[in-house]
Amino acid sequence: MDGHADDAVPLGRLLIIGGGEDRCCGAGLLERFVELAGSDRARITLVTTATGIPDEVHAEYERVFRKLGVERTRELRLRGRADADGDHAEAILREATGVFFSGGDQSRIRALVGSRTNDVLRQRLDDGLVVAGTSAGATALGRTMILGGEGSEVSAATVRTGPGLGLLPKVLIDMHFAERGRLPRLLSAVALEPDHVGVGIDENTAILVTGSHFEVLGSGVVTVVDAERSTVVHPAGDYDPITLFDVRLHLMPAGCVFDISGREPTIGPAHTRY
Amino acid sequence: MDGHADDAVPLGRLLIIGGGEDRCCGAGLLERFVELAGSDRARITLVTTATGIPDEVHAEYERVFRKLGVERTRELRLRGRADADGDHAEAILREATGVFFSGGDQSRIRALVGSRTNDVLRQRLDDGLVVAGTSAGATALGRTMILGGEGSEVSAATVRTGPGLGLLPKVLIDMHFAERGRLPRLLSAVALEPDHVGVGIDENTAILVTGSHFEVLGSGVVTVVDAERSTVVHPAGDYDPITLFDVRLHLMPAGCVFDISGREPTIGPAHTRY
Repeated sequence: MDGHADDAVPLGRLLIIGGGEDRCCGAGLLERFVELAGSDRARITLVTTATGIPDEVHAEYERVFRKLGVERTRELRLRGRADADGDHAEAILREATGVFFSGGDQSRIRALVGSRTNDVLRQRLDDGLVVAGTSAGATALGRTMILGGEGSEVSAATVRTGPGLGLLPKVLIDMHFAERGRLPRLLSAVALEPDHVGVGIDENTAILVTGSHFEVLGSGVVTVVDAERSTVVHPAGDYDPITLFDVRLHLMPAGCVFDISGREPTIGPAHTRY
Repeated sequence: MDGHADDAVPLGRLLIIGGGEDRCCGAGLLERFVELAGSDRARITLVTTATGIPDEVHAEYERVFRKLGVERTRELRLRGRADADGDHAEAILREATGVFFSGGDQSRIRALVGSRTNDVLRQRLDDGLVVAGTSAGATALGRTMILGGEGSEVSAATVRTGPGLGLLPKVLIDMHFAERGRLPRLLSAVALEPDHVGVGIDENTAILVTGSHFEVLGSGVVTVVDAERSTVVHPAGDYDPITLFDVRLHLMPAGCVFDISGREPTIGPAHTRY
């Protein structure tokens, strides 16, 4: 991976996890996050905005990160726009080497979009900050985030989207992907925004973004749907099926690499799972 | 639709239904079948080989077809290879204008593959016979049929296939498609046989094949997956994920037309649902 081919793409690394990451044993994906953030010199901030049970979530990640050699995990709760625009948030984020967005309900993260916190994260990515997110915290990192919707049909009614934190331009993330059968939802989302690459991440699986490439890590598969050159015919009704021709679909297990700018997958040199 | 562009494709028409077809009210797809078979002059044979309850299934279709103007529906039970190679089967099939394969368990239809019944059906398609199948009776019509398997991963373990009746060359049919989330299964099947076009048919939805084209009918969508130009990397283990790049995927609601030889979808002139 050659870093950044596209000027619009920040230098920093993003670790975007499809939820359900292993938290015991080797703790594969989380171990990788800690390594990227500096191992025992890592200063990790956990953003618990998405969850309704921040104390439990903080305790749980602190336990895992401590096991991995991180002494203290700071929590940033960010309960609304005032918090996200505040000095406290900025100070904590400027100190961190790794920021981790917990799961929960991604609609709670909407208050952060366009905030000072959002700006600081974007700037600090260029200085080598590592930003990770799992589940709700994963989809929030894209320019557009999936807010909800379920269904077996590809239609406007199957998905709800909104602006995301935009740390990864032109990408639309979905998660718990194979486990919850979400391909119809991701196809619905890219049919509505064909300039975005749709990236569906299985549980205990992640993409590690460096520059304009990502590598697949973990035990599952990353599904990429690319409708950039597709024929899309929208029906009159939101519940009627969308006609969609010529979607490119890629199924990428661990070790595969995707060039986001060029929209091309390759079999990567690494085939380890973590 | 211009009939037959490819010499390998028979002239006759196939109506391949994804299961769960409407049997009351206008009875859309079944009404279309009866029309194609000659309306009140239709001589319909119901093949109940797949089902474990042939008497009930025969009574049910006879009721529906009678409502649609067909006086009598003959049943062909074909309980094994001897039946399928027998004079009785041939005589009945030579008389029919329409043959309908019921649902059930497609593995029961395996005994018919390569039989005299299979030969007669193939010959008579060239004389204008209409052959229909629903659910198990749908997948059996392809050259390869899906025998079973379920799963959310694309892997060899997700699908079991075997030779089908081959009335539609180079096509692999799956059914109850969106309803049962079977895209992983169909992708697994085409990853194993990339020269076959994968066609997933929703319930109360059908493809009407004429020559080397098909048109989509009914209330759902037909999903086409084309891995002819894909990169496929098979893992060592049957349960490990298959790497699959550059699958072409098309979602085709009613009125869309697919050129099987050229592997191209088009927005058809018709947009009626039946």
